[in-house]
Amino acid sequence: VRPEFDLISRIRALARRYSPELVLGIGDDAAVLKRPSGRWSLVTTDALIEDIHFRREYTPARLLGHKALAVNLSDIAAMGGTPREFLLTLALPEDFDQAYFDEFLDGLLATADASATILIGGDLSASRAGMTIVITVLGDCPAHQAVRRDGAMPGDSIYVTGQVGLSALGLSLLQSGVRLSDALSDLQKRALLAHLAPVPRLALGKYLGEHRIADAMIDVSDGLSSDLFHICEESGVGAVIFSDCLPLVIEARNWGADPLVLALQGGEDYELLFTVRKQKLPLITEVQSAFPDIPLTCIGQIIAEPRKMYLERQGHRESLEPRGYEHFRKAPGGASPIL
Amino acid sequence: VRPEFDLISRIRALARRYSPELVLGIGDDAAVLKRPSGRWSLVTTDALIEDIHFRREYTPARLLGHKALAVNLSDIAAMGGTPREFLLTLALPEDFDQAYFDEFLDGLLATADASATILIGGDLSASRAGMTIVITVLGDCPAHQAVRRDGAMPGDSIYVTGQVGLSALGLSLLQSGVRLSDALSDLQKRALLAHLAPVPRLALGKYLGEHRIADAMIDVSDGLSSDLFHICEESGVGAVIFSDCLPLVIEARNWGADPLVLALQGGEDYELLFTVRKQKLPLITEVQSAFPDIPLTCIGQIIAEPRKMYLERQGHRESLEPRGYEHFRKAPGGASPIL
Repeated sequence: VRPEFDLISRIRALARRYSPELVLGIGDDAAVLKRPSGRWSLVTTDALIEDIHFRREYTPARLLGHKALAVNLSDIAAMGGTPREFLLTLALPEDFDQAYFDEFLDGLLATADASATILIGGDLSASRAGMTIVITVLGDCPAHQAVRRDGAMPGDSIYVTGQVGLSALGLSLLQSGVRLSDALSDLQKRALLAHLAPVPRLALGKYLGEHRIADAMIDVSDGLSSDLFHICEESGVGAVIFSDCLPLVIEARNWGADPLVLALQGGEDYELLFTVRKQKLPLITEVQSAFPDIPLTCIGQIIAEPRKMYLERQGHRESLEPRGYEHFRKAPGGASPIL
Repeated sequence: VRPEFDLISRIRALARRYSPELVLGIGDDAAVLKRPSGRWSLVTTDALIEDIHFRREYTPARLLGHKALAVNLSDIAAMGGTPREFLLTLALPEDFDQAYFDEFLDGLLATADASATILIGGDLSASRAGMTIVITVLGDCPAHQAVRRDGAMPGDSIYVTGQVGLSALGLSLLQSGVRLSDALSDLQKRALLAHLAPVPRLALGKYLGEHRIADAMIDVSDGLSSDLFHICEESGVGAVIFSDCLPLVIEARNWGADPLVLALQGGEDYELLFTVRKQKLPLITEVQSAFPDIPLTCIGQIIAEPRKMYLERQGHRESLEPRGYEHFRKAPGGASPIL
């Protein structure tokens, strides 16, 4: 079996069609549709599948409901858009626990309310094994202002919000038996919540889009190296990451994990990764003061070499391969592809 | 576990929110969104899950690709709308056959092209067991002209297109080992294709909507009795079905099946079921001459008694319960809920 991204390229190549309404199809965080009104439509969809994306034993139902919507909202954030409506498709095993379902729905609708996003439809059916959740979010943005993956230019600075690798640390803690209900250190708790209840950067994404500060943007879902590579591919550029600048989770070393590997390959941070033209760099100070609680870190630079990525540490550049969580890649030994 | 419809009512009750854009949310074939332009948006989603909705052994890949889109197009048809774009979410087992995938995609894109509907995004991941396909279709219709389930009035005539029960006969033939590749009678072939490759009534649905001929409409997916009951519930009315008028598959008797049960409970016919006011009945002749290949049959009448349905045969009225294919209802003995 070929890995996930090959199948996507194949679908993308075969499915290419012209439509006067379609601004952007397969290959970004969301599709963009031109509308006769002043706003354009955004559409994105994401699945959470039991025992692939989550295990029920360590996932509180409320948080699962939250996360299923949050990962989709994050895609809208990465376009600089505003979410409006969503559809929910659920496949549930026959013996599905009613209380778990009720709490799931509770968490989902609380997050929907918090983001002013309304449930307008969906589909419900049985499953043979495990729970499958597919959510589709509709949103919009001002015409011509969707922040795409293909706008990066050589010389741009690369920024990331928050910390990277925290969610992967949380996953590995969960996999080693740590639970939210245990007595936890602050960092353990933050790591578990980063994985179980990621917060989409909606307001910040919208700000970056509407003020035209980011010229390319993506959310960190597969892992920083993979997601940055998507920007490089779509923009026809390369990138250098400055290892010393990365907002790593240094304390991950205490659990025997490599903070750099967690950041580059971990994924599911749902932070925003974006590029900024040199003449717009002064605006970053304004963004930071508008969002004082969200660290913005410059982690590298866009270069002209197409699809080449480097990691620069202590003055040396080494080649950086896009690696991240691939569902089709068997992790040796099973459980975790990271630690 | 409570059956599917109870969960949906529960979600619907909890998820009710006001939005100035939302014309129609959960509970119809598609959601309807008001747009500043002259056309309103339609959104619908439907899942096909292996070993729940289909078995791979008897489903040619091309036809599966077709059907996954067709069942969604049928929902757009039932709103009187035009499909425009779709998203594809796929979960595939690790050992998934490449050739099956390619043919699946082929069939899917051929049907997309035939309906001028373009693939604009989606999500792809691994699954633990079996193939899950979720498609979301976006479409539109002229403002104020979506044909909803809640517009039926006492005195309306009830119409259905094509034949009902053919798909259920096809399913039971497949379950008893008959395959498309066998030497088949004409009827067997039609039955198998009705199940494996249903044709959405897009042009007819649009015609009924744009000429304001149907005042309520739904597609026959769960079974005629269930789908008619949806119209009764949403419209606050009841219905009488004239048994002798139903366009049954009489020959189903040759395989020991009851044509009436197939029609009322079978489902997956993807025919259109709609109601017409008395003063608009003369227009049916025009519809029929515009669509000479699609039989239109008057099968009953809407009555004032809310949520009551009757089957009238040989002058007697008996109560008719909504029964159809429910994924959460265990069929005794397993295989078929019908025969």
